[in-house]
Amino acid sequence: MYVMGLDIGTTGSKAVIFDEQGQILSKEYAEYRLYHREPHFSELNPCEVWDSIKKVIRESVKKSSIDPKEIKAVSTAVLGEAFIPVDQQGRPLYWSMTTYDARAINQTIWWEENFGSESMFKITGQPLTRNMPIYTLQKIQWLKSNKPQIFAKTWKFLCWEDYFNFKLTGKAITDYTVACRTMCFDMVKRRWSDEILDIAALDESMLPEVKPSGHIVGEVTEKGAQEVGLNKGALVIVGGHDQPCGSLGAGIVEEGSLMDATGTVECYGVVQDSLVINDHMRRQGFAIHNYVIHDKYFMFGFTPTGGSILRWFRDNFGFEEKEEAKQRKVDEYDILTSKALKVKPGASNLFLFPYFEGSGTPTWDRRGRGTLIGLTLSHTKSDIIRAILESLAYELKLNIKTIESYDIKVKDVRAIGGGAKSSLWLQIKADITGKEILVPMTKMEATALGAAMLAAKGAGIYRDISEATKYMHRISERYTPKAENKKIYDKTYHKYMKLARILKNTYIFFG
Amino acid sequence: MYVMGLDIGTTGSKAVIFDEQGQILSKEYAEYRLYHREPHFSELNPCEVWDSIKKVIRESVKKSSIDPKEIKAVSTAVLGEAFIPVDQQGRPLYWSMTTYDARAINQTIWWEENFGSESMFKITGQPLTRNMPIYTLQKIQWLKSNKPQIFAKTWKFLCWEDYFNFKLTGKAITDYTVACRTMCFDMVKRRWSDEILDIAALDESMLPEVKPSGHIVGEVTEKGAQEVGLNKGALVIVGGHDQPCGSLGAGIVEEGSLMDATGTVECYGVVQDSLVINDHMRRQGFAIHNYVIHDKYFMFGFTPTGGSILRWFRDNFGFEEKEEAKQRKVDEYDILTSKALKVKPGASNLFLFPYFEGSGTPTWDRRGRGTLIGLTLSHTKSDIIRAILESLAYELKLNIKTIESYDIKVKDVRAIGGGAKSSLWLQIKADITGKEILVPMTKMEATALGAAMLAAKGAGIYRDISEATKYMHRISERYTPKAENKKIYDKTYHKYMKLARILKNTYIFFG
Repeated sequence: MYVMGLDIGTTGSKAVIFDEQGQILSKEYAEYRLYHREPHFSELNPCEVWDSIKKVIRESVKKSSIDPKEIKAVSTAVLGEAFIPVDQQGRPLYWSMTTYDARAINQTIWWEENFGSESMFKITGQPLTRNMPIYTLQKIQWLKSNKPQIFAKTWKFLCWEDYFNFKLTGKAITDYTVACRTMCFDMVKRRWSDEILDIAALDESMLPEVKPSGHIVGEVTEKGAQEVGLNKGALVIVGGHDQPCGSLGAGIVEEGSLMDATGTVECYGVVQDSLVINDHMRRQGFAIHNYVIHDKYFMFGFTPTGGSILRWFRDNFGFEEKEEAKQRKVDEYDILTSKALKVKPGASNLFLFPYFEGSGTPTWDRRGRGTLIGLTLSHTKSDIIRAILESLAYELKLNIKTIESYDIKVKDVRAIGGGAKSSLWLQIKADITGKEILVPMTKMEATALGAAMLAAKGAGIYRDISEATKYMHRISERYTPKAENKKIYDKTYHKYMKLARILKNTYIFFG
Repeated sequence: MYVMGLDIGTTGSKAVIFDEQGQILSKEYAEYRLYHREPHFSELNPCEVWDSIKKVIRESVKKSSIDPKEIKAVSTAVLGEAFIPVDQQGRPLYWSMTTYDARAINQTIWWEENFGSESMFKITGQPLTRNMPIYTLQKIQWLKSNKPQIFAKTWKFLCWEDYFNFKLTGKAITDYTVACRTMCFDMVKRRWSDEILDIAALDESMLPEVKPSGHIVGEVTEKGAQEVGLNKGALVIVGGHDQPCGSLGAGIVEEGSLMDATGTVECYGVVQDSLVINDHMRRQGFAIHNYVIHDKYFMFGFTPTGGSILRWFRDNFGFEEKEEAKQRKVDEYDILTSKALKVKPGASNLFLFPYFEGSGTPTWDRRGRGTLIGLTLSHTKSDIIRAILESLAYELKLNIKTIESYDIKVKDVRAIGGGAKSSLWLQIKADITGKEILVPMTKMEATALGAAMLAAKGAGIYRDISEATKYMHRISERYTPKAENKKIYDKTYHKYMKLARILKNTYIFFG
């Protein structure tokens, strides 16, 4: 028996077919375009995304060479916030505004001033900030004010999980974790917040039903089967937001491990066995959700620029390495990071502050900017690459320390995503944080694997999610802190933090 | 009739033959090695340098196709501080320690603590700082303490001008400007300082005679003629330190213009018609000399990294441009700087602080480090190149404003050296400083031209140095500030200065 995990992201979708042991049978990825039709707009075309989803599902099945009947269940891991207003037939009525679409600024300020960010955090676990108008709620309000004819025609506002579930089963169902990212969901009561919907004058019937991750949405309909090429009657299982799904895919089912997901953004997630929340967390930018294991919570922070700095560096300064990669037929990033291997811990007293898109948790200042400090003529490209890798490890340490300060245990780190491909980077992270870094076998597909685990549980292959994790997840690499490096890094981290405090005074010139 | 200007620098020597109109007939350059035998040592091998000098003189004569007899006179422009202990036959007894040889740190601290930097500045015009043990005096003292047998054998300590003069004429004669850089010369009395020599227990007879620049040293002897291939009887004329010679080569004979010499280091020099000196200047790192026009003074500041940052950038990040330059057969720097042309004034809100080797005048802090601040993912290589060019123009403006604050007039800027080859950079300098930037025809050989002017005066071709300048110097390019850019840059300069003040707090982590 097989299960499919479908990862729907901001720039592409990926279908991965797993066997019961969590081995990948096949996978297929397709990109779609992010549109910026006006300043501050950042949108997906729902039809293009749907075409991509259909394509990756069909192709992954084709590649796997199995009979579609053998795919027992499918579940999704999706980007947060983005939604589609649909009519009763599920036809999209407008573009899908993504996280970084910043048009709902006035609506965000309104909530901040009239409802209060603190109150909002207590109910939804989401840190409302006027500088980050990212949530679904305010975007729906923008639509109501600015596109009333579209609002009037809307039957429901669906996030990408719910939209997928509806297309395949006819049932508009989402889960707690995706619901949390709309900023309309009461994470403690585990249902849409009456208070917030009342104020927004938004009828609950315009939102999907909410069920715990791993529950059954329904069977794939005839029509759904025709669209995506899955078997009619296959089970669609309630999935989750991509971050908690990644955490689950990294094998985290209870408090004690921190997920470090390094893609474009670097996300840090921990499970809370029971809810720990306070207003410091909000001011530091942490979000707290329900987890994909429904009685637990998931707290997550991030650095807005994770892998994106390395990509930026490669695109601007990696011409030589690109050429070399082409000739030697190896990965460009391998060549770039291998240069940092020649440099000793501390990057020859060079420090990068990776706030190219503002600082993330816990310093949380959108005005922050990237700073490279300590340059001398004897520094080389290798030093700068090392400083990039170290900077993100310092931010990881800072986030771990902050999370630990709330009495949430972090015994080890589970690294997933593109950043987990670099053994040097992982060793640096171990040395700087002093934590063991564990890398799951499916580090690149951990998010899809998380969804697949939910599918396997929902299909009854495993009794519960913990059991699914036990069988479908494996650690394949371990990085243990080296004492001599840790000693150096304790000093450089101290310096990094002191420099960060001074540099905070420069933010006013860039904000 | 022709004259030769000989430019003896830290890494190479250059002989240039000029006609009476200052047109270059031929030139020849040869490099020599800078030795670092021990940490903090930075030395030249006198024999290698002398071989190079002989070679460039011979080759330049050969290239010019003129009869050596037609070369009426030769004069030198030399690096400061570096000296050679010689015996009575002029044979070198030790290596020649250059400016950046830092071994005389204890001797420097001794003078600072026992004589005082302020007193020293009043006599010699040289800012004594324990962080910069650069001067001849303390290095001679180091030799006395650490190599007593060499000291005992020494007949005289000669700087490179005096050494050259001695080799060609048998007369050990230097000039005011080179004497000033030893830190033993009283610039007001215009003779070796009895007070300083007394304290150092250094007999004046161990130093060369001092004459004003442009005076006759003597005729080239038979032996001298054989060595270098000049005509016996040709005149050797008292030359000067390379910075004032460069200023003279840029046509500056009186107060009103600022020399901006952008080589590895970027030097700013102004002529004072009568001496203006105060202790602020010392604390800001400015040096004040006699000028090559003997009744005037020369004040100069610098940024330790001028062109060297561009070279560093090219070496580390310019692979693509190097390849392109090779293919298109153009200059690598042209390709690099042309990228900055696409970026608007202000470098997309990106700032570089060029303190890769500490900050120069007037902020004067050796602990300063290079800082690139304001980075976002949308910045490109072009923005950074523009930020490099702008940063050095901000430093130029800061130095001009400081000099003007002492009621020294700066009506325009004369740009010489490698940096004067980039018209974009020159326009940026005009726009940022608000001063007209004038470029002499012989921008790359201005230092040798300055020496050649002294030679022409000494040989009687011209009545005085002003007349030599009038005939031998020509402005070939002018860059006028553009009002719309100036307006933008007034704001960004303000920002630059405010950021610099904040960044000063980070120095303690690097010093």
